Amino acid sequence: MNVAVIGVGHTKFGELWDQSINDLLAHAQLEAFADARLKPQAIDEIYTANMCAGMIEGQLHLGALAAEVIGVDLPATRIEAACVSGSLALRAGMMAIASKQAEVVLVSGVEKMTDVSNDVIATTLFGASDVEAEKYTGVTFPGLFAMITRSYFHKYGITRKDLAHVSVKNHAHAALNPLAHLRKSITHEQVLASSMVADPLSLLDCSLVSDGAAAVVLCSKEFAEKNNYTPIYITGSGASVDSIHLAARDDITTFQATNKAAQKAFAMAGVTPDDIDVLEVHDAFTMAEIMAVEDLGFVEKGKGAHAIASGEMNLDGRLPTNPSGGLKAKGHPVGATGVAQAVEIVKQLRGECGQRQVDNAKIGLTHNVGGIGTTVAVHIFQKEV
Amino acid sequence: MNVAVIGVGHTKFGELWDQSINDLLAHAQLEAFADARLKPQAIDEIYTANMCAGMIEGQLHLGALAAEVIGVDLPATRIEAACVSGSLALRAGMMAIASKQAEVVLVSGVEKMTDVSNDVIATTLFGASDVEAEKYTGVTFPGLFAMITRSYFHKYGITRKDLAHVSVKNHAHAALNPLAHLRKSITHEQVLASSMVADPLSLLDCSLVSDGAAAVVLCSKEFAEKNNYTPIYITGSGASVDSIHLAARDDITTFQATNKAAQKAFAMAGVTPDDIDVLEVHDAFTMAEIMAVEDLGFVEKGKGAHAIASGEMNLDGRLPTNPSGGLKAKGHPVGATGVAQAVEIVKQLRGECGQRQVDNAKIGLTHNVGGIGTTVAVHIFQKEV
Repeated sequence: MNVAVIGVGHTKFGELWDQSINDLLAHAQLEAFADARLKPQAIDEIYTANMCAGMIEGQLHLGALAAEVIGVDLPATRIEAACVSGSLALRAGMMAIASKQAEVVLVSGVEKMTDVSNDVIATTLFGASDVEAEKYTGVTFPGLFAMITRSYFHKYGITRKDLAHVSVKNHAHAALNPLAHLRKSITHEQVLASSMVADPLSLLDCSLVSDGAAAVVLCSKEFAEKNNYTPIYITGSGASVDSIHLAARDDITTFQATNKAAQKAFAMAGVTPDDIDVLEVHDAFTMAEIMAVEDLGFVEKGKGAHAIASGEMNLDGRLPTNPSGGLKAKGHPVGATGVAQAVEIVKQLRGECGQRQVDNAKIGLTHNVGGIGTTVAVHIFQKEV
Repeated sequence: MNVAVIGVGHTKFGELWDQSINDLLAHAQLEAFADARLKPQAIDEIYTANMCAGMIEGQLHLGALAAEVIGVDLPATRIEAACVSGSLALRAGMMAIASKQAEVVLVSGVEKMTDVSNDVIATTLFGASDVEAEKYTGVTFPGLFAMITRSYFHKYGITRKDLAHVSVKNHAHAALNPLAHLRKSITHEQVLASSMVADPLSLLDCSLVSDGAAAVVLCSKEFAEKNNYTPIYITGSGASVDSIHLAARDDITTFQATNKAAQKAFAMAGVTPDDIDVLEVHDAFTMAEIMAVEDLGFVEKGKGAHAIASGEMNLDGRLPTNPSGGLKAKGHPVGATGVAQAVEIVKQLRGECGQRQVDNAKIGLTHNVGGIGTTVAVHIFQKEV
């Protein structure tokens, strides 16, 4: 189901205390329409991703709100699957086009997280797990990922020093991204010296709590050709779920859902990991990026940390990973993240990324995760089809 | 996009204090698989509707939960659009099939509302409106609908006595439905004497706060034929949104989104209101059913109350409306409602409704609303295509 991306929009990520959910949605969506040289009235359907607005400010029905802020009366649906909401909204938008029920679709994602205290955020993010089964044990989300990290350390013999390379790399990339939440480089020593959150994960191993929104305008190949666009195509889409309970998994050092989603996406696009020039992966924690590049098939299992430490995943390396700065440093407004990853890859393939541009990027990939490796979606983007 | 329904499941609606969200989802979904004579592993994708679980018990990521309780590792997406979540999940499931990305899809809806106090429910349901703009005025959802009702009374000259017929009819229908929350008939006098909620809407003008779940198994026409099913087909699907702010509407006595969604659904199915044998409409309040039958095109504007009072929308009338008992008396577990409406219409067209069976029903319609007439979805079901 080749679907064309003809417009992208992306707010600054950060602590945006002067902007509401409505403001952020309007900004990203209108920017995507301007980029596509279309009026909002030109679309047929809207899919909006959001995780937290109900629990943080009592706001549900985000689809209707997304339509309201751009003044259209079209079918509008909110998609939620924890931190993978954005990629599943993208997938739903693609299906709407492939089903021929829509020719042009707006997909947006938004989150407003920094107006409330950390305990509200912790409670809200735990909604990604089975609350009845896991929350009442007292564990937090970083706590769950710390168990995974410990288990991985034990199995593959790496240490906190190896994790830190992920953070250093992604902060260096974010320093080149005007839309990033934390535009500053950090040192290996700073990561290791940062305060402990959930042993062995320290503050600089964790992604950011951010406000932000992103949007893309999708259309059919026929619409893009008829109207003389030079789009980026989404040629592969794969999604899968694993058990929502970490305790139910045979091996917590690998995310099977990443593996399965990637296999589906690669098969649909007819490409292999060797064909990918640039990728954005779900680095909610430094450990998560290491597992992602392995489970996606880019690096042998157990070798992810070494690959990153070697520099091959830097902007100028063999396989630039998280050129945007990733969730770690660009920021992680959860409902927006999957859509924002798509925006970054589209801009990389268009060659519009300025200082953080990956040379000659033709095929890109996004990897987005909801829960503790529970729901994963992988998308493949191509300049030429 | 003709899509076949080959399995349906529906829990009892009511105050189900001994069942969790997981229990309800498992029950409805497994019943739908049994009805379809399929194992859960036979499906390709899951869409699950839910509105309130985040705000009521901190549970998000319902798609993964829906997959978990039936033990599958498939793409699973939660759809939320306030009280129309169920119908938009149905629509997303249909698109997945029409896009040929899936051959068999599970669509479910669930809500667990009766474990918390009324003020939590009132706050949660207000998430359907623009919280920033309307909630802080202090109005409640019944309050917004009371304004609509007053305006309608003024314009069309009806009174509380006219509204009461809707409630009497739907309770009489629910008395024949073993799955209904309130299986008891009530009198016209009882409605008028019930305590005032938001003048002129009294307690028996309002739908119920219920727990419950419903599920349908959808498949492509080809899959149904190849496997010798005798399905009910969904032949029309229309959705539309209106402004989320009641104050932004020119006329609050009509829901334009109902009108537009119905026009799309009728056009897609190639039928007219005259062809419909049975319908389930969104009677969140008695006034809402009157507006629905008008805005859908079944009755001239301003004549809905008279049509209902005349008995023509009773089970044995010209146009049986809400044979299940509707949101008013079958109950309104909001995320489940749209899917439950589909289950009722499928059973009516199959002839499986026992005491509440509508004679010789061949074409049916569901009408589901989110917010204050904000998002509306209409679906048309046919026995023969």
